[in-house]
Parts: sequence; C-alpha cells; structure tokens
Amino acid sequence: MTKTVDLNADMGEGFGAWTMGDDAALLEIVTSANVACGFHGGDWDVMAETMSAAVRKGAGIGAHPGFADLHGFGRNRMQLPRASVQNLVRYQLGAAQAMARAAGGKVRHLKLHGALANMASEDEGLAKACYEAALSVAPNIIIMVLAGTAQYRAAEALGCPVACEIFADRAYNDNATLVDRSLPGAMIQDPILAGARMAEMVREGAIITESGKRIETRIDTICLHGDTPAAVRIAAEVRRSLEADGVTLVQFSGEPA
Amino acid sequence: MTKTVDLNADMGEGFGAWTMGDDAALLEIVTSANVACGFHGGDWDVMAETMSAAVRKGAGIGAHPGFADLHGFGRNRMQLPRASVQNLVRYQLGAAQAMARAAGGKVRHLKLHGALANMASEDEGLAKACYEAALSVAPNIIIMVLAGTAQYRAAEALGCPVACEIFADRAYNDNATLVDRSLPGAMIQDPILAGARMAEMVREGAIITESGKRIETRIDTICLHGDTPAAVRIAAEVRRSLEADGVTLVQFSGEPA
Amino acid sequence: MTKTVDLNADMGEGFGAWTMGDDAALLEIVTSANVACGFHGGDWDVMAETMSAAVRKGAGIGAHPGFADLHGFGRNRMQLPRASVQNLVRYQLGAAQAMARAAGGKVRHLKLHGALANMASEDEGLAKACYEAALSVAPNIIIMVLAGTAQYRAAEALGCPVACEIFADRAYNDNATLVDRSLPGAMIQDPILAGARMAEMVREGAIITESGKRIETRIDTICLHGDTPAAVRIAAEVRRSLEADGVTLVQFSGEPA
Amino acid sequence: MTKTVDLNADMGEGFGAWTMGDDAALLEIVTSANVACGFHGGDWDVMAETMSAAVRKGAGIGAHPGFADLHGFGRNRMQLPRASVQNLVRYQLGAAQAMARAAGGKVRHLKLHGALANMASEDEGLAKACYEAALSVAPNIIIMVLAGTAQYRAAEALGCPVACEIFADRAYNDNATLVDRSLPGAMIQDPILAGARMAEMVREGAIITESGKRIETRIDTICLHGDTPAAVRIAAEVRRSLEADGVTLVQFSGEPA
Repeated sequence: MTKTVDLNADMGEGFGAWTMGDDAALLEIVTSANVACGFHGGDWDVMAETMSAAVRKGAGIGAHPGFADLHGFGRNRMQLPRASVQNLVRYQLGAAQAMARAAGGKVRHLKLHGALANMASEDEGLAKACYEAALSVAPNIIIMVLAGTAQYRAAEALGCPVACEIFADRAYNDNATLVDRSLPGAMIQDPILAGARMAEMVREGAIITESGKRIETRIDTICLHGDTPAAVRIAAEVRRSLEADGVTLVQFSGEPA
Repeated sequence: MTKTVDLNADMGEGFGAWTMGDDAALLEIVTSANVACGFHGGDWDVMAETMSAAVRKGAGIGAHPGFADLHGFGRNRMQLPRASVQNLVRYQLGAAQAMARAAGGKVRHLKLHGALANMASEDEGLAKACYEAALSVAPNIIIMVLAGTAQYRAAEALGCPVACEIFADRAYNDNATLVDRSLPGAMIQDPILAGARMAEMVREGAIITESGKRIETRIDTICLHGDTPAAVRIAAEVRRSLEADGVTLVQFSGEPA
Repeated sequence: MTKTVDLNADMGEGFGAWTMGDDAALLEIVTSANVACGFHGGDWDVMAETMSAAVRKGAGIGAHPGFADLHGFGRNRMQLPRASVQNLVRYQLGAAQAMARAAGGKVRHLKLHGALANMASEDEGLAKACYEAALSVAPNIIIMVLAGTAQYRAAEALGCPVACEIFADRAYNDNATLVDRSLPGAMIQDPILAGARMAEMVREGAIITESGKRIETRIDTICLHGDTPAAVRIAAEVRRSLEADGVTLVQFSGEPA
Repeated sequence: MTKTVDLNADMGEGFGAWTMGDDAALLEIVTSANVACGFHGGDWDVMAETMSAAVRKGAGIGAHPGFADLHGFGRNRMQLPRASVQNLVRYQLGAAQAMARAAGGKVRHLKLHGALANMASEDEGLAKACYEAALSVAPNIIIMVLAGTAQYRAAEALGCPVACEIFADRAYNDNATLVDRSLPGAMIQDPILAGARMAEMVREGAIITESGKRIETRIDTICLHGDTPAAVRIAAEVRRSLEADGVTLVQFSGEPA
C-alpha cells in the first residue's frame, strides 16, 4: 500500500501594504494552505487573493486563526476568558469561510496560529474550547493538530476529523514537543537533512527526536515554511525527498483520532 | 388587509471595554437588529452577546458591515478599489454568519453602515458591488436599502430580496434624501412627532418630506436609534403609535424590488 | 505642620466614538490627572481635550502609558522584550508631552497602566526599565509608584522624583499588595467607609490592611476612580473626608524615595 | 559658490513582524530621514531602531506623520475636522521627538505623508493647520514642503523654517504638480535619466516639466525612494550624478521661504 502525506504551509500573512513570505512558491509545493484570518496577519484583500490562488492550485484551504494582536503577529500569549477565545476562533473561521466561498472554494481545515497554538498544545481544555468553537460554526471541519500534544488529545476527546502534523524544520524533544527556538539545533537549516528526516519519519510513522528516540505517531501532514528563501528551499527538498521515497503527496482525509 | 412593518436598529456597537447604545431597551422594541461586525464597531465578544440576545428576543439578525475605521466609527468616506470594498463586505458578513450560527440564529439581512451606506446611497455601482459581494457569500440574504436611493436601484437591478427602509428621526428632502444633519430640523427630537410621522408614512406608503411633499415608496422597515435616552423614547413611541394605528410589527418578508 | 496629599485619577480613556468615565466630575475633585496615551485607551483628540480640561482646572498632568492592546484595554499581560516595553513607554510619553504642550501645560508625572502596572509592581527590573525609559525622554518627570511594591523599589534605586500612591477603593493584603478583585471585600463600595479609611491612612502615614495591620509607608497621592457614578461619589467623599480632617489637597512635590 | 542640496527618503515604514524598504541602503545615500510615526506605518520599535541608525549615520531626522490608517498605509484621503488633523500631527511629532531623544538625536524637520501630504499640497488651509500644529509642539522645526504647491505657500505665510523638495523619480506637470502615477511616464525608472534630471534641476534652480518647461523654484532637498531594488539604484545614481556635477550633499539649513 502506498504511503501518503499532506504538505501544509502558513500563507496570506501580508497586511495592507506589507507582504510576507513567498506564497506563490509555496503553492507549487504544498497540498494544504493555512490562511491567516486578519487578526495576527492577513486582511480581507490578502485572504481573497490567497484563497483564489489556493483554489487555482488545488490546495486544501484552512482557516488559521490567532490572537487579535497585529503588532505582535499573534505571538504574545494572552490570558483571555475561554468564551472570548471561542468567539475569536468563530469570528475568524466565519470570515475565512466567506472569503473561501467567494473564491470558489471552501474551508476544509482549521489550524491554530502562534501563541494560541502554543498554549493549546499545552492546555487540553483550551484546545478543546477552540475546536468546539470551530465545530459549532463548521461541523465537518478537519482539525489540524500538533502530533503528540494536548491539541491531539483534545481532538481525540471530541471525536472530530483530525490531521496530525509534524514540522519539517524543527528539532523534537523526547516528549514530542519542539526544541525551543532559542536553543542550538532547534531549527533545521539544511534542506537535505530536513528532506531526509521527513522521509524517515513518514516511512516509520514516528517522530524522531534529537536524541534519536522514536515516538510512534500518526503523521498526516508536514508543516513547511516560506518566509525566507532558505525556507522555500527546505520546503521544495522535503517534497522531492518524499516523492523519491515513493510517498504520494495528497490532502489529508481527516480520519478521527 | 392588515398593514405590517418591521422596526430595525443598529446594535452591538461596543468595542472591548467600551459600550455604546442601550441594546437591551432596543430589543424590547425592534423586530430586526443590525449587528456591527468589528470593523467600525463591535467585536467578536460583543457580537456573540448581541446575537444571543437577538435570538432570545426573536429579532431578525442582520450583518451591518462598515469601513475598517474603528477610530472614525466608519463615518469617514474612503475611496477604495471596488474589489476591496467587496472583500470587506464578504469578510464581515462571514464573521457575522459564524457568530449568529454559534448563537443559534442566522443572518437574515444585510445593511451597510455609516459612510459606506452614504456612498452607496449615491452610487448605484458601489451599492451593486456591495450587494453582489453579500450575495456571493449568502445567496438568500435580504438586502436592506434606503428607500428611494441608489441603494434601492442597485438591489432592484440585482432582483434580490429587499427590505426598504425609512428613518424615524430624520427629516427628508424633496428628492427622498435625508436632510443634512447640520441643518435645523434635520433631526426629529420629539417622540410624539416622530411617532405620528411614521404612522402617517406607513399608512400612506409614502415618504413625507419637510415641505410636505408625498413620495410614494415601498416601506418595509423603519430605522430607530438607541444611542441616547431620547432616542430610545422615540423608538418606543414610534412602536406605540404604529400599533395604535393598527399596524402589525413583524419582520420584513424580503420581496424583491 | 499641615498634612498634604494629592488626589489622582485616570482620565481621557475614551476612544473615537466611545466615551468612558466622568472626567468632568473627576476634575472637580482631583489634583492630578493620569491621561491615557492612545495604546489601551485615549486618542489624539481625547488627549487634547483632556489636557485642556486639566490645564483649565489646574490639575497636574501625567502620562498613563499601557500595552498596545486597545481591545483588551491594556489589561492583558504581555511578555515583551524589555527594550520594546521601553520603546512603548517612550513613544506614549512623547505623544503626551506634545499634547500637553499644545494645551498650554506639561507632563509632570508618569503612571503605568493596567497589566503593565501590575507586572511592574511585581518585577523591579521591569519597573526600572519603564522608569529609565521615561527619564530618558523627560529627565525631571515624577514617577508615580504603588506604595510598598517593586515599583517603589525601582524608583528608589533610580533616585528619581517619586509620588507614592494608595488606592481609595481597594482593600490591602498584609504584604501591601491589593486584595484580588475577585475576592469578597476587595472593592470598597461605601463612600463613607472609603473616606474614613483614607483619612486614617493619611493621618497615620500607613497602609491599613484588611486584617487591621498597619504598614508604615510614604503616602503622596490617593488614586480615585470615575468610571461609575458610585466611583465618583466615593471620590467626592474621600476629598470631603480628608478636608474635614484638616488635610490640604495639593499636587505632590516629587521628593525622591 | 558651491551648490548644496539635501537628499531625503522615507524610512522606518515596517510594522511589527513586517518590513518595508531597504533603510540600511538608503542611509548610505541620504542626508535626511523621514521617519514614519506609527499611524500609517512604523511602530515604537521600528522608530527606535531607525532613529538610532540615522544618528549613527549622521542623517537629519524628520517626523513623517500620516493619517491613522494602518491598513491603507495612510494613502486614503480622510476628511477630518481641522482640529483633529492638528491633534494627530502633534501626537505623532511628540512621539517622534521622544524616540529621537532616546536615540541621542532630535527631530529636525517635519514632512507630511501620503494622502495627508497630497491633500495639503492642494489645500493651503490644511497645510497651514498641520504646520501650526507642528510648530506648537516644536517651535524651531523645519517644515519640508513640496516645491511650488500649497504646502510651500502655507509655510511661507507662517514664516517658519522651510526645506523645499522635489522628487527624483516622478515626472512633473506644467503647473509644478506631479504627473499622476497612473499615467505613462509618471514614474522615472531609469537611474541615469533620474540622475541627469536631478543634476540639471539643481543646477538651474528649477523644476523641469514633462513638456520641457522650466519653473524656477528653490530646491533644498530631493526625495528618494527605497522600497524596491530599482528605487535604491536610482537613489544611488542621483547622489553620484549630483556629486559629479560638483554639488555638495548636506542637510538643508531651513531658511524661511
């Protein structure tokens, strides 16, 4: 049986007169696009353009909601009432659905952004609240979760469609969390290394940690980045390496956890 | 045959720590609520609360999009590319749909806010662009238009469901436009007068201008305000006066123009 | 020798179309005004108006900078690089200086707002960074600090002019911190009680805690609130009670700690 | 006697996670830097960094205020009350003064940005209001004006220090206004042509229009751009061409008009 995996990337992160990332290059590589929804980045025009491009390229569209912190790009942790976090997820998802529909597509999945994602990967209750909010607006939406974290457990508890994600350019700790960005070796900078790692993890169905430990996990999608030329080269090499390994790159199906 | 009319008011115009208007009082009076969508006023939490209250009270829910100008409350005219105006209508409508759905309701109508509404009442092309954008997201949505203006003609050209609106607290010029706010007599401040005028206009199916001229027009809904205690008193008196005149207050049906 | 004390209140917290608090009533009571600087509340127009009013009433003008979080009114704790916090203090202080100058006044003191103030009352390093930033822009500015907290110690270490503040409507713990708002009795709601407490604390030169403990401390100013009618009544009664006790209400002089 | 001229460029136009323009390259070329003040672009951190860099390179620092329209980059014309425009100029100038001071520099000039600049170049009353606002905050500030426009006449009427500006990369109409960007030939794209034009205009003390007409005018500074690699090449070639022509590049002195 053929192995398959999805490749996803964050997109549509410009705002007004400012651009960010090379979305056109990424759309030649990925099968799913996580589209910023205007709170931490993106705006109505950027969303319209990004979703049209995703539709043209056949990429699956995801809503990528974050905290309402444009200046901090959604990277500041904010302690908000649970209901308020649910409301901001709903609002952004609804906006994304409208923009996708007008572009001839639809929102297929949801992925949390930035500090909200980080907090949800540690706090199952928060993750569950976000996902319930999304499901209250889009009952069939596929929830993209960080494999092995509280995000996964929250989606599992809800029994909703899920896509389990690993990162192409980040090293892993032995408990399946990402090595802190500030530590040496946290970021994988070498395209060949990144490609080889991803091919191995997909082949083995396991996260391979910095120490060499294997943590068996379901892998549905690989997160790529495109905010630097180097990141785009890594993304392209990951795709090439997986294809060379016989892996078919295709949108995730969203089996429940 | 019984005369019917809808009463509508703008709501959910608070933002963060700031409140605006007496929504609770208005919801005892109106049959339709135009809910701000976060660009000129309102936010995800205010929207959630406003829509829940509207659902509880049985008021029809409308999306009330405006320009992305929080500081100016959407009252500054902005010359934007037509496509960008369409995108901001779609974005706000989609967000409103999500918040309504999560509150157990649905968005039934769309009404443009502030400077965007004023510009659309003068520019049929702009009005049409906004309404097409709304219909691309919500094909069955009822478009609330200012009776006798370019807004009406745009909706007529589109053949979409329409609700024609007059204002309870504003004087009219002989060409059916509103008397400029800065002119004496532009604002109707006396509840008894406002009530009597509305009853007469609904009875006659005509706008009655400052000079006494009658302009026959379809009247589906009356716009009330609630941002001052006097405005709430006017709203209540308009309702009382119409009921005393045998008019049934009920949500508009949305017949095409 | 006559006892003197200053009365201060936060003001100018409206934004655009939204108002907050009864600044006119407060300016009849206080001797110092902490003016919001546009990040958590306030804007250029509100600042201009507030500073003109303060100048007319002879109130000392303070800059009241907060986090760049308009939606959260600066009440969300944000973990930012120290240099970035310094930059936002400088920016807001500079803006306040310009608005004060144009209104015929000058910024005399600085008081941190909201979550930034709370964090600085616990973290001497953060407080020191904020105050150094303020002094780099305005070398003679008086720093208003929460008596008995890390804010005080930071200003003491810097040797800069200081005004030590207690709260009229908040209960104190035995370590001089404020009783958490969510606990019963945290908020003093009774004007007579608030007035009597303030007179006693000023007379004794000590914070009196919930348990009755006396913590000797320098008291230069009392923080009043004006965001509710009850708060304005408390403010007025505190002033009356102090005057009845022979205390002269006058702007703080800013002796170093 | 040696001819001298200043070279200026807009800088510090990034915001949060977004960058714009190649400020480092421009600072190798210009003698004056117009620093965005956080309303249309720029933020407290970007300002701090930009002003430090300007101080290091010896460039004169200018405040570059614009409309409060981050999404539109200050390019949307906004009809605001005159007093409100004055307030936003004061606020941004004050913020810039604080950031400059903390960076070891000072704000030497003011230049209006975007739609505000365009409106002020057509409306002498608006220009005068903006400049009076700036002078109320910084009485000795040099006002940078578009040569030959209502901006110049407003500064002339005020008798304040002035720097008259022409554009390196824009064609001129016979009435000294800029050819509309949408028309062919409006933008000068060829570095050699731009350099030759600027050398000629400075030599002759005149704007040379598209049709070849010479409009005698005082030229104190030339505006360069840096938002594209081509723009930086034009900027460098303009500098080279002027130096080859014996022109000394030095900050403007600010003689009154």
